[in-house]
Amino acid sequence: MRHTISLQLEDRFGDLQRIIGLFSAKCLEIESLSVSPTLDANISCATIVTRGEERAIEQLVKLLNRQVRVLNAADVTKRDCLERETAFIRVKAEDDSEKQKVLNLASLFNARVADASNERFIIEATGDHHTVRGLINSLKPFGVEEVVRTGTVAIERLPEPSERRNGDAEYRL
Amino acid sequence: MRHTISLQLEDRFGDLQRIIGLFSAKCLEIESLSVSPTLDANISCATIVTRGEERAIEQLVKLLNRQVRVLNAADVTKRDCLERETAFIRVKAEDDSEKQKVLNLASLFNARVADASNERFIIEATGDHHTVRGLINSLKPFGVEEVVRTGTVAIERLPEPSERRNGDAEYRL
Repeated sequence: MRHTISLQLEDRFGDLQRIIGLFSAKCLEIESLSVSPTLDANISCATIVTRGEERAIEQLVKLLNRQVRVLNAADVTKRDCLERETAFIRVKAEDDSEKQKVLNLASLFNARVADASNERFIIEATGDHHTVRGLINSLKPFGVEEVVRTGTVAIERLPEPSERRNGDAEYRL
Repeated sequence: MRHTISLQLEDRFGDLQRIIGLFSAKCLEIESLSVSPTLDANISCATIVTRGEERAIEQLVKLLNRQVRVLNAADVTKRDCLERETAFIRVKAEDDSEKQKVLNLASLFNARVADASNERFIIEATGDHHTVRGLINSLKPFGVEEVVRTGTVAIERLPEPSERRNGDAEYRL
């Protein structure tokens, strides 16, 4: 099963390497990985997507939390999270009819054209990994030449009004 | 100086760890890192943003290209590239006036509201790292509680018509 692991770590040479080593040691392949600075310049946030048995992931998260430089690690897969990734897709579109079809598809997936030449587009798409994969698959018949994707990142949704302790008026967009 | 290094590597346990080890060995701190699958399931694409002297980066890229599992590594900093990252920003907005200001800022940076509760928004922003950093800094006075960012990814722009050798699709990239 696909698991998303979110962790915060102190930004020190070699620590990221050690974290990744733990995945290899457990034979868990990393599907995607994003590491970026947080508000505190000394702390990085990493989001790692991996596939594996529930038990192996549980053990891994325990192991991660035991690392000195890891401030907090959690498997957020079952939490109510928003998930996003961004992809650049370079796709061929050699005549007007193909161009129109590619643009229609991009628009259906809320993607946009980041660059265009006579015979090619670079499409920029942001969404959860299903959306991005869906767009890439839909564009394949036209000739997708290159795909560059960020890893997936996740953040927990804000609590529903009913989960609040006090009864203020709440709204969601 | 900030450098963006783009590389493609065969997807094998431990290889990513080795790559990251090369940065530590050269004392180059990793600012952001994105690793994601490409169209070929056996090949991953990694984009690494680091800061360092021109010479150290040149040596690193040579070293990266000498790795068996690295298919291609390049410092794309000076190439004509599109660059994007996506960020979730959880920000406080406790009254109507603050809410309006936060929404106006988000709209100015082409960001959108991904979730909202009575006192908070989760803003979703996609852009180059200056744009994302600019939005985060603009939102700080309201109380930014959490930031989760993907690493930066880069793709070379499509060539201008004048750069073509002949009228056909004659491309580098």
